[in-house]
Amino acid sequence: MPISLDDLRRQLAIANRILGNEGVIDAFGHASIRHPGNPNRYFLARSRSPLWVAPDDILEFDLDSESVRPLTVQPYGERVIHGEIYKARPDVNSVVHHHSGAVLPFCMTGVPLVPLFHLGATMGETVPFWDQRDDFGDTNLLVIKPEEGASLARALGKNWTVLMRRHGATVAGTTLQEAVFRSINGCVNAECQLRAMAIGTIGPLNAAEARDAGAFNLQPRPMARAWEYWTLRLGERANFPVRAKAAAKAPARKSKAAPRKRVKAAAKTRRR
Amino acid sequence: MPISLDDLRRQLAIANRILGNEGVIDAFGHASIRHPGNPNRYFLARSRSPLWVAPDDILEFDLDSESVRPLTVQPYGERVIHGEIYKARPDVNSVVHHHSGAVLPFCMTGVPLVPLFHLGATMGETVPFWDQRDDFGDTNLLVIKPEEGASLARALGKNWTVLMRRHGATVAGTTLQEAVFRSINGCVNAECQLRAMAIGTIGPLNAAEARDAGAFNLQPRPMARAWEYWTLRLGERANFPVRAKAAAKAPARKSKAAPRKRVKAAAKTRRR
Amino acid sequence: MPISLDDLRRQLAIANRILGNEGVIDAFGHASIRHPGNPNRYFLARSRSPLWVAPDDILEFDLDSESVRPLTVQPYGERVIHGEIYKARPDVNSVVHHHSGAVLPFCMTGVPLVPLFHLGATMGETVPFWDQRDDFGDTNLLVIKPEEGASLARALGKNWTVLMRRHGATVAGTTLQEAVFRSINGCVNAECQLRAMAIGTIGPLNAAEARDAGAFNLQPRPMARAWEYWTLRLGERANFPVRAKAAAKAPARKSKAAPRKRVKAAAKTRRR
Amino acid sequence: MPISLDDLRRQLAIANRILGNEGVIDAFGHASIRHPGNPNRYFLARSRSPLWVAPDDILEFDLDSESVRPLTVQPYGERVIHGEIYKARPDVNSVVHHHSGAVLPFCMTGVPLVPLFHLGATMGETVPFWDQRDDFGDTNLLVIKPEEGASLARALGKNWTVLMRRHGATVAGTTLQEAVFRSINGCVNAECQLRAMAIGTIGPLNAAEARDAGAFNLQPRPMARAWEYWTLRLGERANFPVRAKAAAKAPARKSKAAPRKRVKAAAKTRRR
Repeated sequence: MPISLDDLRRQLAIANRILGNEGVIDAFGHASIRHPGNPNRYFLARSRSPLWVAPDDILEFDLDSESVRPLTVQPYGERVIHGEIYKARPDVNSVVHHHSGAVLPFCMTGVPLVPLFHLGATMGETVPFWDQRDDFGDTNLLVIKPEEGASLARALGKNWTVLMRRHGATVAGTTLQEAVFRSINGCVNAECQLRAMAIGTIGPLNAAEARDAGAFNLQPRPMARAWEYWTLRLGERANFPVRAKAAAKAPARKSKAAPRKRVKAAAKTRRR
Repeated sequence: MPISLDDLRRQLAIANRILGNEGVIDAFGHASIRHPGNPNRYFLARSRSPLWVAPDDILEFDLDSESVRPLTVQPYGERVIHGEIYKARPDVNSVVHHHSGAVLPFCMTGVPLVPLFHLGATMGETVPFWDQRDDFGDTNLLVIKPEEGASLARALGKNWTVLMRRHGATVAGTTLQEAVFRSINGCVNAECQLRAMAIGTIGPLNAAEARDAGAFNLQPRPMARAWEYWTLRLGERANFPVRAKAAAKAPARKSKAAPRKRVKAAAKTRRR
Repeated sequence: MPISLDDLRRQLAIANRILGNEGVIDAFGHASIRHPGNPNRYFLARSRSPLWVAPDDILEFDLDSESVRPLTVQPYGERVIHGEIYKARPDVNSVVHHHSGAVLPFCMTGVPLVPLFHLGATMGETVPFWDQRDDFGDTNLLVIKPEEGASLARALGKNWTVLMRRHGATVAGTTLQEAVFRSINGCVNAECQLRAMAIGTIGPLNAAEARDAGAFNLQPRPMARAWEYWTLRLGERANFPVRAKAAAKAPARKSKAAPRKRVKAAAKTRRR
Repeated sequence: MPISLDDLRRQLAIANRILGNEGVIDAFGHASIRHPGNPNRYFLARSRSPLWVAPDDILEFDLDSESVRPLTVQPYGERVIHGEIYKARPDVNSVVHHHSGAVLPFCMTGVPLVPLFHLGATMGETVPFWDQRDDFGDTNLLVIKPEEGASLARALGKNWTVLMRRHGATVAGTTLQEAVFRSINGCVNAECQLRAMAIGTIGPLNAAEARDAGAFNLQPRPMARAWEYWTLRLGERANFPVRAKAAAKAPARKSKAAPRKRVKAAAKTRRR
């Protein structure tokens, strides 16, 4: 049975909030999902911080990043990042764009980001580097024109994470859960690489290890365990508007009833 | 319709608290706004930590940093930082002074702080460096005499952020929201520069990029998105005295009713 | 009077949550305890994040890491880490496996982790380094086959902490409390070593100091003081399902009634 | 009018909790105050983590660090640090001992800790370095024998902060508030020095600046502003047992009624 669009909006809202709560994204950045029934459409929130995105904030766009309905709210300026990657990569069903402090030092120096432990391998064996200056010269660094998004999609190529010089990172996934898992663990890898390079010479995973460890950790079981962890952390947040229904329907949640009840209790507390 | 002075006091209190909640300012530091109806006056809190500044704490000063009313409470010792910059720079309507741990390493070494990503560009293309020792020899490092404030204002020149050797930073803005946005994103840039320099050679934005990216991000839309983010984070804080009315009137808040209700709920919880 | 298995399950759940709350473990990692009445068995949670492990999640395994009862829930994939160490080391009664960001930089560079202060000495005088590649060539980095666990146990040897290249760390203890104490203080030592190496040349404890300081701090009194600290911090966490009974029965808690009441109050709040 | 001993116990409990809440002290470390009416006595908590010290936990010792009453609870093992400094320094009325992660890298390398900004100057112009090995050879690193405390007091000399090799720091003050202010700002200075040394060459305050800036910031006004900040932060902590009465009587709190009410509200919430 395919997922309903209502459930999809709720899942995307939760994914946005998880990325905010886990520190990948702050006031800026965004996450999208391709329409499961129409590969020429994708869903993305209106222009607001991911930490507070609600299901009602989710808008629908075509792959030229034009809204399919007349807009009454402001969309994100950089939505071509999503549309152009969906055009170039039929296997991609979710995109995350962020400016995490974990990856920015790599974006500011050009030092390659490499997989250094089993979970970090989920960001992909190779993380290419896109410098907007190469194609466009001096810009305001934003990715707003379709050709800018297309250039970024070319730099991503067949990989899953791309660094953007003096800007941030863009992460793709075959599913929403995968894109979130890859974004968070890519940031953990980046944090550790920063600290490791300060004390010695790094010894990265080789290609075979990166491929095998990446594939192992992107299986449903490890992803579900992490998704439960992130969802429960989100539910703990005081006054935080997680809806019980939304949390309960998160696809990765297959555990006992207890956590759901806790999230419900938290939601009730908030509403009072 | 011009803003009422009541609203202005509430906005300034919220700006103080945002700077405290986002970690730019701790027990010390302060933020001011120029009187919108009288360019020879400015508003600044009495001497207390920005995180707990309330509208009733806001005092009014002339540009010589003398209170326009008899004082019954203690003012900040370093208010000449504000008065002297307002004198020297008619285009400046808000000033923030802080000792964030993000900028102090630059103040302790003399290493230049430079714009390294699009949001960091909002601190200005050039961040000058003021060493109080040059004009005044050995001091207690505080900026208390009018001539000390004037010297700092000269070092700031036509720029928007100035580092103060062995002390901290001072940030100017054409509006209160701009000064807050520049302070917070300047600290993010500084944090990332610290980490980037530990792993490689930084590749800063060039002058054209810094100018264009700075101008783009200081437009009303990106600033409003960040202001909503910071205000909602503030409203989450347990027992935190954000007044619903004050939060609701923050100029950047143009979103749906839900967040306002949440802030109200938080305020009620606190009052109980 | 020996501890009941119900109490043991509660203690193990609390230990898991302490490790999660103190930042040693995030979505992954796990802690086990040997069966006090049968040295050929051990207890370990089902596959879920340690921060949310409850007494009912605890499963029982033999030393080949096979469940002693038919499984209706998913076990951890890497449980051979526990079983093989219990086989090789009859003096070990508890094992913790984690991927803390404090130790990963050592696992990524091969830089030795050494005891640098009195509490850090509790991780052991020597921290050996296991590179799975030496015995098994290219793998997915996980420790899932019995021979992988046995290889790790050989690398641990007679020591108490072992680093795992490109993976994390495994920590052993004569008691559950000791394994937790060693894990947390080992991470503090690692954090400080990272920062110390960035500013100068480290001057480690010599063997005699490490042995004496380690032994002193692993006495019941210092361990009980830390256990009370960690348990109370856990009880503070909003909506956090610490059961009053479980907290009250933690062996290290010998203090006055007040803290117990506080934990109870927190538990009540949560249940509402 | 001299302070009552009841008030003194409450102040000391609050000071302990502030040090815990601000991250200077974790499970270990302690703070003491000299008896205001009898210079041959001092007050120090029973052996528990500073974050949960309550007025009833405070014990009274003579300068040989013997309890003046029969003990029914366990005292701290390292109390000679306090007694021997009170013996050697009649001008010292409060002592804090901690193992903050901010100072440990200096204790592990021998790199000198120096005043680098105006608030850091409050730790004193010179921070001497004590290596227990010089006087006692191999030890367990703890300071338990009177002669160990006396050796540390000699190393402190006429200064206010002393680093202890492979152990931590000890901080003295003419008042409790001063010792807390110096401890916290000394840690801020240490944190910034760590980060500054990673990017360049530090340019410390000279002796005159350090003396003048230190003296300025240890005046009642700046210390009261910081004390209010730390006390309100403490009062925010969920389920945290700050007693309204104790908080209200903190000497530095001279602000309006609102904050006191907030602390009271927090205390009520907790008691429920």
